[in-house]
Amino acid sequence: MIDIIGIDADDTLWDNETLYARTQERVSQLLEPYNREGRVGEALYETEMRNLRLYGYGIKGFALSMIETAIRVSDSRIQAGEIQQIINLAKEMLDAPVQLLDHVEEVVPALAASCRLILITKGDLRDQETKLAQSGLAPYFEHVEIVRDKTVEIYRALLVKYQIPPERFLMVGNSLRSDVLPVVKLGGLGVHIPYHLTWAHEAVSRDIGAAAGYEELEHIGLLPAYVEGLCRRGM
Amino acid sequence: MIDIIGIDADDTLWDNETLYARTQERVSQLLEPYNREGRVGEALYETEMRNLRLYGYGIKGFALSMIETAIRVSDSRIQAGEIQQIINLAKEMLDAPVQLLDHVEEVVPALAASCRLILITKGDLRDQETKLAQSGLAPYFEHVEIVRDKTVEIYRALLVKYQIPPERFLMVGNSLRSDVLPVVKLGGLGVHIPYHLTWAHEAVSRDIGAAAGYEELEHIGLLPAYVEGLCRRGM
Repeated sequence: MIDIIGIDADDTLWDNETLYARTQERVSQLLEPYNREGRVGEALYETEMRNLRLYGYGIKGFALSMIETAIRVSDSRIQAGEIQQIINLAKEMLDAPVQLLDHVEEVVPALAASCRLILITKGDLRDQETKLAQSGLAPYFEHVEIVRDKTVEIYRALLVKYQIPPERFLMVGNSLRSDVLPVVKLGGLGVHIPYHLTWAHEAVSRDIGAAAGYEELEHIGLLPAYVEGLCRRGM
Repeated sequence: MIDIIGIDADDTLWDNETLYARTQERVSQLLEPYNREGRVGEALYETEMRNLRLYGYGIKGFALSMIETAIRVSDSRIQAGEIQQIINLAKEMLDAPVQLLDHVEEVVPALAASCRLILITKGDLRDQETKLAQSGLAPYFEHVEIVRDKTVEIYRALLVKYQIPPERFLMVGNSLRSDVLPVVKLGGLGVHIPYHLTWAHEAVSRDIGAAAGYEELEHIGLLPAYVEGLCRRGM
């Protein structure tokens, strides 16, 4: 039996990584005249990893890392007007309407009818609250936790806070690294629903996954059948 | 009687606005060759207000607004290397050690001995969690709420969440606009502890303050005497 189902947000309920990928593509084009080797993606990832400790996750940190990468990749030849274009791309990302993934609109209310749900997402507080409000899904979640990272320790603290035994907790998400493996490690249940894009930072090798013992579903539309009978609201 | 005391963080427990002011001063110096009118402060504030809906509060949004202001104020003549300097200043801010304000180190443990405490702060999730962890004050707070804004509605939702009647809630902070007036409006108690610097966005006119009916203390060292007998832990 399960007390509560944790659900990730970005790339589990709504589209996120394609926004980043599209912006990165446009910045690569912007940098083409300065950078004939075309390795902007690698340079950006390197900058992001170096800045992660200070910036955390989210679009604003991504924007600052893009600007820094543009300066470096162009050997400081990039023009102020082009940097303003990068800022404008980041603003477009922040202002982009939430795009629910397939099945989400039907699945979340259906799950909420029989299970208690908690949204567990990392990233920028304001971005995530705005997206949740826009999504129309907020009423189906009993709790919302926007965390700075998704580690074993942070999941453990959440389970203590809500007094949920790990073996009665199920976490669903697109990231093995953030949504599935730490929960399985704690003794909980993990359901992995892959998204067609995975940020390199979230990727893990297939071997690690196979050994961990979690469920993999092709899409979130299959989740209600998987959890059927596992949780009963109000019990 | 009071059930719980809410305490603001930035410029109430630790220094914050001076970091912003110092960085702004350094960016103004950087822009001097491009901008003989010296109105960087005004231009920056205007940019920040325009971007607030998208960026929210915090150092990363401030950094992006500084870069945008630098581009505009310099008529796009600013160099990439100078923009990198602005990014470096933002990183210094993010990496700056927490400086507790006078009396805080003694006052918070003393208060926690007789009152339940909740930290209520806005800003960037990661920044605030890092500062709280560094401050050594985390063990004294029963709850921590990092909110995207401090409006009447957001305070109301917090009081509902923790089942606190407004008249049994006391909020302490340096910002009349964010910490005191919305709580007083809800029927709670407000204690204003001014800081020597106030961001223009947080300023309210003295008339509004005088009419609202809240307490003003010169420094946080006076808070234990003010709340003495108002709350008893565990009752």
